Amino acid sequence: MFTTQDARWMARALELARRGRFTTSPNPAVGCVIVKDGQLVGEGFHRRAGGPHAEVFALQAAGEAAQGATAYVTLEPCSHYGRTPPCAQGLIDAGVSRVVAAMVDPNPQVAGRGLAMLQDAGIRAEAGLMTDEAEAVNVGFLHRMRTGRPFVTLKLAASLDGRTALANGESQWITGPAARRDVQRHRAQSCAILSGADTVLMDNAALNVRWQELPASLRQDYAEAELRQPLRIVIDTQNRLHAGLRLFAQPGPVLLLRGEVTGGFGDEVEECVLPLAADGKLDLELLLEELGRRQLNYLWVEAGATLGGALFGAGLVNELILYQAPMLMGNPARGLLALPEFTAMSQPPRLAWQDCRLVGGDLKLTARVTD
Amino acid sequence: MFTTQDARWMARALELARRGRFTTSPNPAVGCVIVKDGQLVGEGFHRRAGGPHAEVFALQAAGEAAQGATAYVTLEPCSHYGRTPPCAQGLIDAGVSRVVAAMVDPNPQVAGRGLAMLQDAGIRAEAGLMTDEAEAVNVGFLHRMRTGRPFVTLKLAASLDGRTALANGESQWITGPAARRDVQRHRAQSCAILSGADTVLMDNAALNVRWQELPASLRQDYAEAELRQPLRIVIDTQNRLHAGLRLFAQPGPVLLLRGEVTGGFGDEVEECVLPLAADGKLDLELLLEELGRRQLNYLWVEAGATLGGALFGAGLVNELILYQAPMLMGNPARGLLALPEFTAMSQPPRLAWQDCRLVGGDLKLTARVTD
Repeated sequence: MFTTQDARWMARALELARRGRFTTSPNPAVGCVIVKDGQLVGEGFHRRAGGPHAEVFALQAAGEAAQGATAYVTLEPCSHYGRTPPCAQGLIDAGVSRVVAAMVDPNPQVAGRGLAMLQDAGIRAEAGLMTDEAEAVNVGFLHRMRTGRPFVTLKLAASLDGRTALANGESQWITGPAARRDVQRHRAQSCAILSGADTVLMDNAALNVRWQELPASLRQDYAEAELRQPLRIVIDTQNRLHAGLRLFAQPGPVLLLRGEVTGGFGDEVEECVLPLAADGKLDLELLLEELGRRQLNYLWVEAGATLGGALFGAGLVNELILYQAPMLMGNPARGLLALPEFTAMSQPPRLAWQDCRLVGGDLKLTARVTD
Repeated sequence: MFTTQDARWMARALELARRGRFTTSPNPAVGCVIVKDGQLVGEGFHRRAGGPHAEVFALQAAGEAAQGATAYVTLEPCSHYGRTPPCAQGLIDAGVSRVVAAMVDPNPQVAGRGLAMLQDAGIRAEAGLMTDEAEAVNVGFLHRMRTGRPFVTLKLAASLDGRTALANGESQWITGPAARRDVQRHRAQSCAILSGADTVLMDNAALNVRWQELPASLRQDYAEAELRQPLRIVIDTQNRLHAGLRLFAQPGPVLLLRGEVTGGFGDEVEECVLPLAADGKLDLELLLEELGRRQLNYLWVEAGATLGGALFGAGLVNELILYQAPMLMGNPARGLLALPEFTAMSQPPRLAWQDCRLVGGDLKLTARVTD
């Protein structure tokens, strides 16, 4: 049983956890608060993989005061030696008397063993407070731990009648500057951005995070020096990309999925040949498994109707973010998503609404694909 | 200058006005509250064209107490003899000392003359309190007074990618039962419903208001015995409709816009031949002018991509209501609106968001076409 006070401290721990959300991957973002006699005695959050965990910072801040205190953590303390020693042991050594975790860590190396370790040491340790909020902070990490694949968000932008470009191809700009800044925010939170050769060639898209274009509130939390460029992944099985594109002029790693390796793209560009599916296209399921093995938690997809449709049609999209501009472009204009033809209304999968809000002059809809 | 107390009483008058919104057309819905020494002494609303106006009910209720009182009305009191004597005269005769109107009545028979009549009698009379709210109550009436045409709302229902039916034509059901009940509510508030022969033939649509399907909250205010069926208008210039359709089996007036008058549809059906435009289709602008002459305030359009697109493309749609189902149907499915091909992104008209809400499992978007 948890009290209102417990919830208040966990809310603070979640607030701290969120501050790490741009920099911790492949690790989860975690916050920790240590409370003694109703007073905050230490707090911290995980900032960067390889650096100290949230508990370490919080225990350091608490010092002697940690003895007999309660530790609130947004994810079960780890029980294994990774790049740092197990946090469960740190909490035991510091003499805390109670540990509240928002949720059990599904990481197979932890999965309840952190709590068990604490309980074996006589500490009252329990999980399950504000679990939904804690899930939301680490949607990518948790999905990868559970499925071996990154969480996939498909970003789309269209008119109210689902059109992404005029019949002649013109599409700049359907959505407004605020929506484009919002996309920068999502890119910054991603481990990788996936696109197709068509999109890169047509828009000469750099697909990078431009710090100056991030919302001001975010820039405050996330210094330019800390900026991490997500891995930019482009499917180019027909080897159509060339080294002169803006994609290659921006710093940051690039992964090209090509028909053959040609070289000549520079040091930060990896070319990779993956098996093709029966239809001669890249096997997208294999691709996601490979990205999971590379410890990519959250994949942000900015693609055209073909690649977006192929991912969605194969059931590989977890979330849809659709920016809708308040206009109608009409049936001659280009459609949003190429999907195989459905023949009964029971076939198109139903999504579950997550959020709906105005972003500048456009509506931003978020919906999840349910299993 | 108006006070907070003034606003409080006007809010009550608006509440009363709304209770008439299903039954007053072609008249506006109007509410009136009479207040003396800070006490409500009478109130009323206009219920039905030909019946007493809001002011008459309120003055009746107030009796002697109206002397020296303030009258709050949601629309300028009328100054002309219509089916009832002018309300401005009634207020003068009752001895009120102040009249506050939410807005001036744009009806050319009134247009400030009501307020002038009151002022000439030495009454402090002014307009302009909660005008936006008052506009919203009578959007149809006010639009017709200003333009001579009904206010046109185009209703659409589609998937997130703007598809209204599968490639094979199947479309039942994209949106859920709550959205369909919501459509019943809009039909009930309409003076007329416009559709095309295709839609009527394909769905065998009755296009009537089914009292039992109205939301319960609305049924409470609007007794089944009071139900008015909006005029159902169907464009059938190729004379494809036949008397066996459900449209003709339901009580209520029907107007058919035909290529020629054939008769045989029953007593409640009027056939009408209107001039065609240069493209051989019905001249929609002429149609709206004819509907304005018939004193229809609010036209609710439930049509397919062709008629909907023709109305929108001709700039004859004032408002769009789009029910969006949380699913993707893909490019092979049918598009929302047939429009002439745009060749530059500056061409599609931008709409202004009015509202966005969940209706059952679907999102309901409302947007206005701005001039």
